[in-house]
Amino acid sequence: MRILHTADWHLGKMFYGDYLTDEQEYVLKEQFLPLLKDEGIEAVVLSGDVYDRSLPPAAAVELFDEIATKVTAELHIPFLVISGNHDSASRLSFGSALLARQGLYIAGDLDKLTGPVILRDDAGPVAFVLLPYAEPADVRHFLSDETIHDHQKALEALCAFQSRGCDDMRAVCVSHVFASGGVSSDSERPLSIGGTDMIDSAVFDRFQYTALGHLHGPQQVGRPEVRYAGSLLKYSFSEATQKKGAVLVDLADNGQVSSRFISFTPRHDVRILKGSFHDIMEREDDRTGDYVLARIDDTEPVLDGMARLRKKYPNAMALESPRRRISDHAGDRDFNIRGTTEEELFSSFAGAMRPEQPLSEKETDCLHQLWDALRKEEGGGIL
Amino acid sequence: MRILHTADWHLGKMFYGDYLTDEQEYVLKEQFLPLLKDEGIEAVVLSGDVYDRSLPPAAAVELFDEIATKVTAELHIPFLVISGNHDSASRLSFGSALLARQGLYIAGDLDKLTGPVILRDDAGPVAFVLLPYAEPADVRHFLSDETIHDHQKALEALCAFQSRGCDDMRAVCVSHVFASGGVSSDSERPLSIGGTDMIDSAVFDRFQYTALGHLHGPQQVGRPEVRYAGSLLKYSFSEATQKKGAVLVDLADNGQVSSRFISFTPRHDVRILKGSFHDIMEREDDRTGDYVLARIDDTEPVLDGMARLRKKYPNAMALESPRRRISDHAGDRDFNIRGTTEEELFSSFAGAMRPEQPLSEKETDCLHQLWDALRKEEGGGIL
Repeated sequence: MRILHTADWHLGKMFYGDYLTDEQEYVLKEQFLPLLKDEGIEAVVLSGDVYDRSLPPAAAVELFDEIATKVTAELHIPFLVISGNHDSASRLSFGSALLARQGLYIAGDLDKLTGPVILRDDAGPVAFVLLPYAEPADVRHFLSDETIHDHQKALEALCAFQSRGCDDMRAVCVSHVFASGGVSSDSERPLSIGGTDMIDSAVFDRFQYTALGHLHGPQQVGRPEVRYAGSLLKYSFSEATQKKGAVLVDLADNGQVSSRFISFTPRHDVRILKGSFHDIMEREDDRTGDYVLARIDDTEPVLDGMARLRKKYPNAMALESPRRRISDHAGDRDFNIRGTTEEELFSSFAGAMRPEQPLSEKETDCLHQLWDALRKEEGGGIL
Repeated sequence: MRILHTADWHLGKMFYGDYLTDEQEYVLKEQFLPLLKDEGIEAVVLSGDVYDRSLPPAAAVELFDEIATKVTAELHIPFLVISGNHDSASRLSFGSALLARQGLYIAGDLDKLTGPVILRDDAGPVAFVLLPYAEPADVRHFLSDETIHDHQKALEALCAFQSRGCDDMRAVCVSHVFASGGVSSDSERPLSIGGTDMIDSAVFDRFQYTALGHLHGPQQVGRPEVRYAGSLLKYSFSEATQKKGAVLVDLADNGQVSSRFISFTPRHDVRILKGSFHDIMEREDDRTGDYVLARIDDTEPVLDGMARLRKKYPNAMALESPRRRISDHAGDRDFNIRGTTEEELFSSFAGAMRPEQPLSEKETDCLHQLWDALRKEEGGGIL
C-alpha cells in the first residue's frame, strides 16, 4: 500500500498579519493533488493541525472542504485525518460518522472514536490507528482511568483503546505529539509547560509506520519508520532552511516499509537575507515576491529601511539589525530576543520602565497566570 | 411523500445568560427523532438558522452532528438543510458534497449550489429547491447580475437558478426569508434595516409547498402551502404564547398538499406570570422549573424580589414592574421599553444625562454607524 503522509497544514495561518490561505491553496492544488494521482497514492494521512486555530476563518474551512472532497470523491483515495492541538476536535469532527462512509476519516472528539480504520490491499488488511491530540485529563475522563496524568500515559492508553482488534494486522499509527528527540521550531506551540509533553517513541514500536504531526521540520524519531512529515509551508523564519513537503511511504505485503520525502515548492518562499542593507538592495534576486526577513549587519541605523526594502521585496516581513548599537538610558542592549523567555523579556522591560523596583513575587505570579490564560485561550485548551 | 418541515433550531442559543443546548437536545431526542419514526416521515427539511450564531459553541456543533447522523444514517431519511441569517454559510456547508451522498443535503455557500435535490416516491420525482439565506450583494456577485439590489430580486434570481431542470416535477421550496404578511417576534434579527427585507410570497407560487424559516411563530403566508414552521423552542418572552413544533406535510401523487402542525413540549416552558408579587408567590404551580418572567402589577417596590422569586422558580429570568412608580429627577417614566427603537431609548438616556443639550446630528449618525457595525459583527454579515 502506498501512503502519503502529510501534517501540520495550519490552514488559515496568519504570518506577520497576512493570511497565508492563498499560498496554502497554491501548494495543495498545484502540487499535493497532482502528486496523489501521479504517484498512485492509495491512502492519504494528515497528522493533525488541519487548521491554525480552533475557530478558523471561513476561507480556510472552504479550502479544506474542497481538498478533502477532491481527495475522496474525485480521486477516490481514503483520507485519514486527526485533530491536532491547534484544532477544535468537536468542530473538526462534525459529520465524521457520515463522512467516514465517503472515505474521509476524521478522528477528533474522543467520544466518537471507533477503533482502527481498516483499509485493504492485495496482501490483506492494514489498520490505521488514529490518535487525535488530547489532553491527559480528557483521556483520563474518557477511559475512566484515574492513573492517567501525563501525555505519555494518555497516549499509551488511547493507543491501546484505538488498536483493539488489529493485533495480527499490518498497522499504521497517526499521532500528533512531541516525541522525545524531535527538534522544534518557532511556530509550534508547546503542548504543555515544562516538558511533560514529551513522549517516548517506544509506544510506537508495534507499528510498521508511525505518521507524526506537530513538529514543523520533517524528521525521523529514533528509527526511519517513526517520522514527522513537517508542515505544509514555512510558518516562521526559524523554518527558513527546512524542507517542506510530504512523505511517500510504501508498505509492502510483508510489512516492510520504505519511505522518501517529496518536496513542495511554494509560490513564495520564506527566506532570511543576510549582509549589509546596501548589499541586499543591490544584489540581483529573481524571487523578490518571497516572504523575507532582512537580518542586516549594519551597525549604524538605516533610515526608513522597511519601506525601502519593500520597494524591492513587496512581501518583506521584517528588518532586523542585531549588530546595531543603541545608546539609551539602559546602555547598549544586545541580547537575543528569540532566545529569551517571556519572563526574561518582561523583566527587562519592567527594569527599564521602573529601574528602582524589580518585579515582586506577586507580580511575577500574576504574569504567569496571565500568560497561561492567554495561551489556553488561543489554543482552545492547552496549547 | 410525507415531509417534516422544521426551522429555526438556533442551537447554542443563549437565553438570559444560559445556553439552551440541553433543552434543545431534550426536544430533539425525545420528541423530534421519535416523531420521524412514528409518523413514517420520508424527508426532513430544516429551513435555516441551524445555529444561533456563525461561530456556535462546540456543544451545539456536536448536537447537530448527532441529530443529523441519526436522521440520515440510522433512520435513513433524507435531511435537507439550508443556512439562515444566523448561520455561517461556509462553516455550515463543510463537507456538503460528501454529506449529500449520505442523504444530508446542506445548502449554504452559493458557490456550492448544484440545482434542485431530486427525491422520489412511487409517483415519481419531487424536486427540493434549496435557497440558503444570502445577501443581495452576494447573489448579485454570484449570478453576475447587476440588476440585483434587494432581497426580492435576489430571491427570484436564486430561485430561478436553483429550480433549473425541474419545471415538470412536483417541487418543494425551502427558504429563509421575511415574507410580507408574516408576524415577527422579539428574537428574530431583522434581515436588513428599514423594511427592504420583505419579500412578496408570489415568488413561491410555482411550488406545491414552501417550507419557510426565519419567523418564530408558526404561520401560513397567504395560502396554507406557504408556511413558517416556527422555531424549535420559545426563544423570547414575546413567544410565550406561541406553539412550537414542526409541520407534517403530505404531498400527494397529484401534487395536492395537506399539512398539520405537531407541537413539541419542552422540558421547561417559557411563561409570563402576571398578578401581584404576593399572588404569584402564593399561587399553586407544578411547573416551577419553567423559564419565567414575572410581570407584576405592584405599584410599590418589591424588596429583593428576584431572589425571592428564584426560591420558587429557580429558572426565573426577569421581574418586571411596569406599573411601579419611580420618582427620580426626570419625573415618572412609564414608557414601553420593548416598543421603542434603539434611537429612542438612547435619546431618552442622553436626555436624562445631559438635559440641556439634545443629541446632535453628527452624534446620531455616529450612533447609527456603531449599531450597524455591532449588528454586522454579531450576524456574521448583515443581521
